[in-house]
Amino acid sequence: MIKNILAAALLIAATFTTVSAADLTHKHALNLEVAKAIAAAGEAHARANNWNVIITILDDGGNMLYMQRMDGAQIGSIAVSLRKAESAINFKRPTKVFADGIATTPGLAMLPGAIANEGGLPIVVDGEVIGSIGVSGVTAQQDGMIGQAAIDALPKILGN
Amino acid sequence: MIKNILAAALLIAATFTTVSAADLTHKHALNLEVAKAIAAAGEAHARANNWNVIITILDDGGNMLYMQRMDGAQIGSIAVSLRKAESAINFKRPTKVFADGIATTPGLAMLPGAIANEGGLPIVVDGEVIGSIGVSGVTAQQDGMIGQAAIDALPKILGN
Amino acid sequence: MIKNILAAALLIAATFTTVSAADLTHKHALNLEVAKAIAAAGEAHARANNWNVIITILDDGGNMLYMQRMDGAQIGSIAVSLRKAESAINFKRPTKVFADGIATTPGLAMLPGAIANEGGLPIVVDGEVIGSIGVSGVTAQQDGMIGQAAIDALPKILGN
Amino acid sequence: MIKNILAAALLIAATFTTVSAADLTHKHALNLEVAKAIAAAGEAHARANNWNVIITILDDGGNMLYMQRMDGAQIGSIAVSLRKAESAINFKRPTKVFADGIATTPGLAMLPGAIANEGGLPIVVDGEVIGSIGVSGVTAQQDGMIGQAAIDALPKILGN
Repeated sequence: MIKNILAAALLIAATFTTVSAADLTHKHALNLEVAKAIAAAGEAHARANNWNVIITILDDGGNMLYMQRMDGAQIGSIAVSLRKAESAINFKRPTKVFADGIATTPGLAMLPGAIANEGGLPIVVDGEVIGSIGVSGVTAQQDGMIGQAAIDALPKILGN
Repeated sequence: MIKNILAAALLIAATFTTVSAADLTHKHALNLEVAKAIAAAGEAHARANNWNVIITILDDGGNMLYMQRMDGAQIGSIAVSLRKAESAINFKRPTKVFADGIATTPGLAMLPGAIANEGGLPIVVDGEVIGSIGVSGVTAQQDGMIGQAAIDALPKILGN
Repeated sequence: MIKNILAAALLIAATFTTVSAADLTHKHALNLEVAKAIAAAGEAHARANNWNVIITILDDGGNMLYMQRMDGAQIGSIAVSLRKAESAINFKRPTKVFADGIATTPGLAMLPGAIANEGGLPIVVDGEVIGSIGVSGVTAQQDGMIGQAAIDALPKILGN
Repeated sequence: MIKNILAAALLIAATFTTVSAADLTHKHALNLEVAKAIAAAGEAHARANNWNVIITILDDGGNMLYMQRMDGAQIGSIAVSLRKAESAINFKRPTKVFADGIATTPGLAMLPGAIANEGGLPIVVDGEVIGSIGVSGVTAQQDGMIGQAAIDALPKILGN
């Protein structure tokens, strides 16, 4: 048993090669501090309108980075907010595009990982999609306004 | 085994900190007695019409509190009844709203946790959604009538 | 669209019956402000130790209220953190109880909704379980220390 | 369209052949009235001990027939109660058999549809398994006692 583990360790050591990163792609990445600030901007817009929503923020890999549910928001909007954010990062476009298109392209309803309701938006920096936000809890149009307010706060958050 | 349970109990006692709840939100909650009475009112309406259905009742968190299947009801209606109840608590509105809206808003078909068939209704007390009922087994309209009969019994059940 | 929403609102108003809540159970509920403060206490403890973790907070119905992922935390810990919080609310006890018990009670491995790794704790106020916290990202014991630090901050958060 | 529907109806009529049932197997079947009585017997035993549990009853096809959650029972026990009942009908034996066997047969933990915790029992009439009951909420041993009390009430319920 011990011998097997040693053999495995040697194999792994032989497999890993230390290389320089010069040839790799580089990408911007959201971090928790920025995600919190984006969500706070969305929450501020929601509170100003007495709207209670869920806000979910995903990174560029579609993995959850931040989520908050305002008091009184319906629990079904937890999954909807997540799905909107997933749709936005999955397809690098706002969910409004699908909401607008589904009447003439009903096949969109069968697109895995997509949702045809406004309120999901990609987070874009220097033309690069670095994450997404999903908002749900009020009407789809209002959800979209909250998401847009969060996105519009980005330049200020990033100090531009 | 007993020793393990005792140890666990001590651990829990040590872990819990008793604090005052003054700053928390307070809310009403369904209990089993009320849930049974609501289902019985629905069942009575179903029997009077020779309809055999499944009735599912969820609490405010969407967790199952009560479920019964009348003899002869199709087994597929078990999941449908649950989905209707989930949709009603998830979105704090009757599933009829989605059934009516989907023709003009086809994107509703992509809403996770929702169903566009009549028969799911929120249970509301003092303006607060404390749970939901889902009925399935006959036509969607008949399912909705049974659900409504159950909801209409609430004032009598609660002694008003 | 607006017309549809208005119609839906009228339908809801007609469907809901306002009744007294005298016979119902009453319960406390977490809110977003308290959840953020609990997570912040956990995050402070993590930062002080240079630990990067995910913190998830659920309400009493097991529905997500708040989630944050610190930079550098492994993405697998997102689901683990959620599972720990679910286990804690599902079974109203710390996940450490299962971690300690599984050696002598191997059947625990088959318990749906449970996890046998430290780091999930119920949030208790006045003896009532009002939610849970799940922490994942470092060792199970360290996850548990972060969760405990978050729980220990409750009296201060609630002004006691 | 109408023509297609007529063609389909004719096809179905041609496919269905009315036959005598003499050659078929006959089986006893649980019904809602008996299921409610079984659950009531379990609930009475639980109340007498101040235990709050979930009781789930499945038919011979493993489909849910009845479910009730007593006030204060932990929500995780909803899924556990269901899993116990599923295990009992899936394998036509009490879950205690797996709970007792897992220490010496750890592979049981990988058996799909099984659970190694006491509290799931088949409902047997004239040597025929007609359904199952799953109880969860207190200790596994206590869950098993409630399930047994429910099963023991069967002769009286069936008028024997």
